[in-house]
Amino acid sequence: MNIQESKDRDIIENSEFKQVAEQLKPQLNTKLQQPKHYITTYEDSQAIHGWNAKKIATWQEMKHKAYGKNESFIVDFNDHMAGFLRLNINPVGSPPDAPLHIKLTFGETLVEVSEPFYNYEGWLSSSWLQEEVFYVDVMPATITLPRRYSFRYLKVSVLDTSPKYSVSFDAISCKTVTSADINKIPQVEIADEKMQQIDKVSIKTLIDCMHDVFEDGPKRDRRLWLGDLRLQALANYQTVQNNDLVKRCLYLFAAVPNQNGEIAANLFLEPTLIPDDTYLFDYSLFFSTTLFDYYEATKDKQTLKDLWPSALRQVENALSRLSKENIVMDDSSWWSFIDWHEELNKQASSQAVLIYTLKKTAKIAKILEEEETFSWIDKQINIIAKATIEYLWDEQVGFFISGEKRQISWASQIWMVIAGVFDKERNKKLLQRLLKENPKVGINTPYMYHHLVDALLISEEKEIAIQYLENYWGKMVDLGADTFWELFNPDNPTFSPYGSHLINSYCHAWSCTPTYFIRKYKL
Amino acid sequence: MNIQESKDRDIIENSEFKQVAEQLKPQLNTKLQQPKHYITTYEDSQAIHGWNAKKIATWQEMKHKAYGKNESFIVDFNDHMAGFLRLNINPVGSPPDAPLHIKLTFGETLVEVSEPFYNYEGWLSSSWLQEEVFYVDVMPATITLPRRYSFRYLKVSVLDTSPKYSVSFDAISCKTVTSADINKIPQVEIADEKMQQIDKVSIKTLIDCMHDVFEDGPKRDRRLWLGDLRLQALANYQTVQNNDLVKRCLYLFAAVPNQNGEIAANLFLEPTLIPDDTYLFDYSLFFSTTLFDYYEATKDKQTLKDLWPSALRQVENALSRLSKENIVMDDSSWWSFIDWHEELNKQASSQAVLIYTLKKTAKIAKILEEEETFSWIDKQINIIAKATIEYLWDEQVGFFISGEKRQISWASQIWMVIAGVFDKERNKKLLQRLLKENPKVGINTPYMYHHLVDALLISEEKEIAIQYLENYWGKMVDLGADTFWELFNPDNPTFSPYGSHLINSYCHAWSCTPTYFIRKYKL
Repeated sequence: MNIQESKDRDIIENSEFKQVAEQLKPQLNTKLQQPKHYITTYEDSQAIHGWNAKKIATWQEMKHKAYGKNESFIVDFNDHMAGFLRLNINPVGSPPDAPLHIKLTFGETLVEVSEPFYNYEGWLSSSWLQEEVFYVDVMPATITLPRRYSFRYLKVSVLDTSPKYSVSFDAISCKTVTSADINKIPQVEIADEKMQQIDKVSIKTLIDCMHDVFEDGPKRDRRLWLGDLRLQALANYQTVQNNDLVKRCLYLFAAVPNQNGEIAANLFLEPTLIPDDTYLFDYSLFFSTTLFDYYEATKDKQTLKDLWPSALRQVENALSRLSKENIVMDDSSWWSFIDWHEELNKQASSQAVLIYTLKKTAKIAKILEEEETFSWIDKQINIIAKATIEYLWDEQVGFFISGEKRQISWASQIWMVIAGVFDKERNKKLLQRLLKENPKVGINTPYMYHHLVDALLISEEKEIAIQYLENYWGKMVDLGADTFWELFNPDNPTFSPYGSHLINSYCHAWSCTPTYFIRKYKL
Repeated sequence: MNIQESKDRDIIENSEFKQVAEQLKPQLNTKLQQPKHYITTYEDSQAIHGWNAKKIATWQEMKHKAYGKNESFIVDFNDHMAGFLRLNINPVGSPPDAPLHIKLTFGETLVEVSEPFYNYEGWLSSSWLQEEVFYVDVMPATITLPRRYSFRYLKVSVLDTSPKYSVSFDAISCKTVTSADINKIPQVEIADEKMQQIDKVSIKTLIDCMHDVFEDGPKRDRRLWLGDLRLQALANYQTVQNNDLVKRCLYLFAAVPNQNGEIAANLFLEPTLIPDDTYLFDYSLFFSTTLFDYYEATKDKQTLKDLWPSALRQVENALSRLSKENIVMDDSSWWSFIDWHEELNKQASSQAVLIYTLKKTAKIAKILEEEETFSWIDKQINIIAKATIEYLWDEQVGFFISGEKRQISWASQIWMVIAGVFDKERNKKLLQRLLKENPKVGINTPYMYHHLVDALLISEEKEIAIQYLENYWGKMVDLGADTFWELFNPDNPTFSPYGSHLINSYCHAWSCTPTYFIRKYKL
């Protein structure tokens, strides 16, 4: 069974849900920002991706300099931007007797404005590399790019003018956009300075991913993914509290299930609402947990009622994947996400996600007084938890194993702790053993690190959780992150699951959760 | 003295002239055209620039084919287009999970869609190479390019999609634009089939250069040059008769002289009316001859009166360049155009252009009953013509010589014939001697060939003139020209004064004059 990319699917659209979502479409808040400095980049083996930068001058000092064929400059906006670039272009010299040919390169990081894109050979589309090449026939000109870009650094390369003129840029600005309302962020006391920084970068990450929907990343994929939404929503409740945006996203997902009632892993909003043909075991289940979290934060019972059948359906679908031993059946396809890790076997983690979801879904049933369903789910939890220990727990090695080859991974242990298969004490011991033994199949993403910290906090290992926040997210801050990155492996800082760190997203929703931990647990 | 690129000029704007020109701004006629064939190009040493094409299929047969990363195709519109391209782009496969990155390359000739532009190293700006590279985020999409392009062939290169989708193009069209009114073209009998073809291609060339003003070429420079205007106007009177467009262009030139009353070699229309800072001896003088030709065609005495002071001023300025021997002073700068020819000395030709212009200007003075001015000009003609024979005619070699090194060129003899320095019989003999002796400094452009044919026809050498039409413009037709080229040297078909034939314009105003000869002289 391959539930990914079912080609012959039908979409069963719920127009009422779609309408609710439409009415919740947010207003975008805008802000005009200017570059701060001209910089030059240089190779530095100590810096992230091997690139560092020197300030050359302030923007004010250099903005009237003229550039001719094959000349370029880099400006630094001094913070992460998600918005629309505007440039004033003035001819210098004779009237322009040929078009201007110009290239703009946008970098969330220095490497993107320092290494050429034409060498890129990753497997994700090169069309995500942020670049615009265009002609300007009439100058002076004010150019506003129609596409939104995500960047801190802008490289302007004059490809050609003519021997008779050059160009200057007396105004460059970015109109940033976000649907987040920063005025709603509660003022909280955070004693530790590093924690303050991490909190700030988390919130900035969240804000720059909030547009018409919660996006995974403003550079890439600029799309509503369920796995990201779940974590963004948690950070949102503690900060900007744009709860209607969570509600909107839940209704959008529920509006376009397939003929089996499955909710897609992500949605396209344009040209119309279209569910992607990717369906993932864990992501579909997260519809239910995200709905529960939303209710917890808002007590919005109407939404809980409306979307309950959709949530329940995800659970039913997931249960149909159980073997006769009540273990989630594994296969070689990309059926469940869990983490970006080539070697990771996802069976045990997915089993845990199912249990975790069943528990939250049972709570919804209880709230909605669906007693019969509650009893049925509760019974499932007991059966599946028991099967989990029987088939996936290896008493001898002291870890949960996953797949035919009985793989021992960090992900499996972490998710089993979150699922609460054992009691708190055994969980604590499992985590301690995990940290001590450090199995080879580790963690690649802030997404999975989130779950490690979550597991530590619910196991009351607050100090170790803080250490991870400091050493992982804090390390990104030390390396210059204005927003948290999609991917970060401290032992291999150029890691990319896509074949090139150029294509990585450096402002990524699933990495924004430290603020959730810091504020919820008063770290 | 260098009258080219005077940096410290002032523009003395005549707002009344500008207003007259504004009111004559033409309506553009549009036509929607579709590609006819899919083609593939291949190297062929017998074909122009070494490229030939095979038809693969009709547009109808192939328009639903899907293209993925690094795939491309070429369509042939089967005629020259000057207009706006529109594309329908449809995704094929999964919903597009990454932007489409696409490149469009436009070719007036096969070489432009067969050889890459990145090798271009000519001295004219590479920004004239016709290419668009852009991203499409939302599909299906209908894209209308905002820039006008000039082409017969369109290469569509899909740079990247994603592994999950490809794209098809079920509609491609070009909305061609011209201010020419083809209904006004007189139906004339042209017996010879080759002459019919040449006439047709001439008219097509003229039409595709007629927009808000007479442009030199819709690919490059897309600008109003006086030297081109003069010849376009002649072709126009015999064909589409959009005489108000000539009038508009004359008022535009007269509206923005510099502080010396000099009329610029060309004008920019956007962002506002700006004269280029290039001033050429011959082009400035052609203001007067073009005005005279316009009056001859229209008998519009008001315009003649209005613009007479501007015309006279060009003549006065040119006379101030005469030495005490009444010979135009030479210098090493680009002071006079005459032809694209690196070795050509321009003194004798420019002297002839002055005499030619003085004669037409005298006629204007006569028509306007400016008797005193007429007498003065008439006297100048006699003095200068006499000096010309005394200093520039070499009786021993039987040719006019030019410059310090006494250069003997085709251009000098041709212009002296047109200027009528000798009587008809001597002119005829000079031309016969020119053809027989074939001096080394020859002709590179249809612009100069126009003057050769003109010289032959006014010397009643009709047969030889016809031979040149057939062997020169006819040769371009044989090589597949839909419109006549800016540059063509039959002995060196890839000749370009710009360092690359890729940048040449293949629909160029100054090449459109065969229809003028064919219709005026009933060839």
